[in-house]
Amino acid sequence: MKRAVVLLSGGLDSATCLAMAQAAGYECHTLAFDYGQRHRTELEAAARVSVSLGASSHRVVGISLDTIGGSSLTDTSMAVPEQEGEGVPTTYVPARNTVFLSLGLGLAEVLAAQAIYIGINAVDYSGYPDCRPAFLTAFQTLADVATVAGVEGHGPRIEAPLLSMSKAEIVTAGTQLGVDYGATISCYQADEDGRACGRCDSCRLRRAGFEAAGLADPTRYV
Amino acid sequence: MKRAVVLLSGGLDSATCLAMAQAAGYECHTLAFDYGQRHRTELEAAARVSVSLGASSHRVVGISLDTIGGSSLTDTSMAVPEQEGEGVPTTYVPARNTVFLSLGLGLAEVLAAQAIYIGINAVDYSGYPDCRPAFLTAFQTLADVATVAGVEGHGPRIEAPLLSMSKAEIVTAGTQLGVDYGATISCYQADEDGRACGRCDSCRLRRAGFEAAGLADPTRYV
Repeated sequence: MKRAVVLLSGGLDSATCLAMAQAAGYECHTLAFDYGQRHRTELEAAARVSVSLGASSHRVVGISLDTIGGSSLTDTSMAVPEQEGEGVPTTYVPARNTVFLSLGLGLAEVLAAQAIYIGINAVDYSGYPDCRPAFLTAFQTLADVATVAGVEGHGPRIEAPLLSMSKAEIVTAGTQLGVDYGATISCYQADEDGRACGRCDSCRLRRAGFEAAGLADPTRYV
Repeated sequence: MKRAVVLLSGGLDSATCLAMAQAAGYECHTLAFDYGQRHRTELEAAARVSVSLGASSHRVVGISLDTIGGSSLTDTSMAVPEQEGEGVPTTYVPARNTVFLSLGLGLAEVLAAQAIYIGINAVDYSGYPDCRPAFLTAFQTLADVATVAGVEGHGPRIEAPLLSMSKAEIVTAGTQLGVDYGATISCYQADEDGRACGRCDSCRLRRAGFEAAGLADPTRYV
């Protein structure tokens, strides 16, 4: 059976991505990251989503990204923005997707997986440099030479099925695949019970997605 | 003043690399990784080397690579090899240099550094896929698109000055730059006092390097 590593944050996008990888016939192994993020309830959501969507294994890799800093998601001295600003949002974590895909590449090598799924999206996160198609293409080139599989032929295929989808298209597709979005957490500052603030960038994008799709929003807000 | 992130393991190669970056006129910020490696005395050596060679700051990022496994350096159920075998050594850590450079890229972005120095070597570590020139070229392409600096022009330059040098050439160059190799640890299974085993791949390469260079080997062996 073909095998995939699926990067799972516990949010809406990566849950949809996992459902898509399962639907594509992969034996899925999910990988979450404990990187000192503020929204730690995401990690519990990731573990729940992995089980509920039938993944074969779930791992959490710890990375102390707070040592590096530079983001309002890991640096508690910076405020999480509640309205859109100019340029790159402060919620951008320097090189985060590069780091996460690199660790996915390591796990793919250990598991001999043919694919790595990542739920990046160039539409809603246009301010993040590592959510762009050019980033994805460059990472694929790297994956093809960076590992033993790469030396012997080609590395795992980097799959980003959400890349060009709107949030409304994502929730529509996921709902058809049976994703329980009530189990996911997108909020950058969810409380201890996993309730969303309803005000941060991520909450606003998510809420607008359900509205545009004409679907009920199962998110629990504070 | 131009600024560089220098990946520092505490071993001979990365110490030489730091001395070269300092000699090239960079304000150097060293970055070490605590990734569940067996040879933990390396981390103490990295901190010592950073101070003794005059780096401006030193950081340690923790990564639980043992969650991913697949290497005798992080998996205590696998033995460290004491003689050369065929193919990729078991000491290879899946995607390690990709992960380390990615974290270096994140720090370079936060510090607005123009360069990232890494002490990889294609001569002695020909069995490691992520020590090859093709890997380095692909990572440079990625670095040029993965960060905000990349979007605005180009990413930091990935510098691997040891890439084509023999171990003898490395220790000769480092000695001329004042590196105290007695403070470095290369052994894959050094003891708690930092004494080297003298038998693993890394010890054998290091010892042969000093011999070929006609320099005294300051390594403390058990």
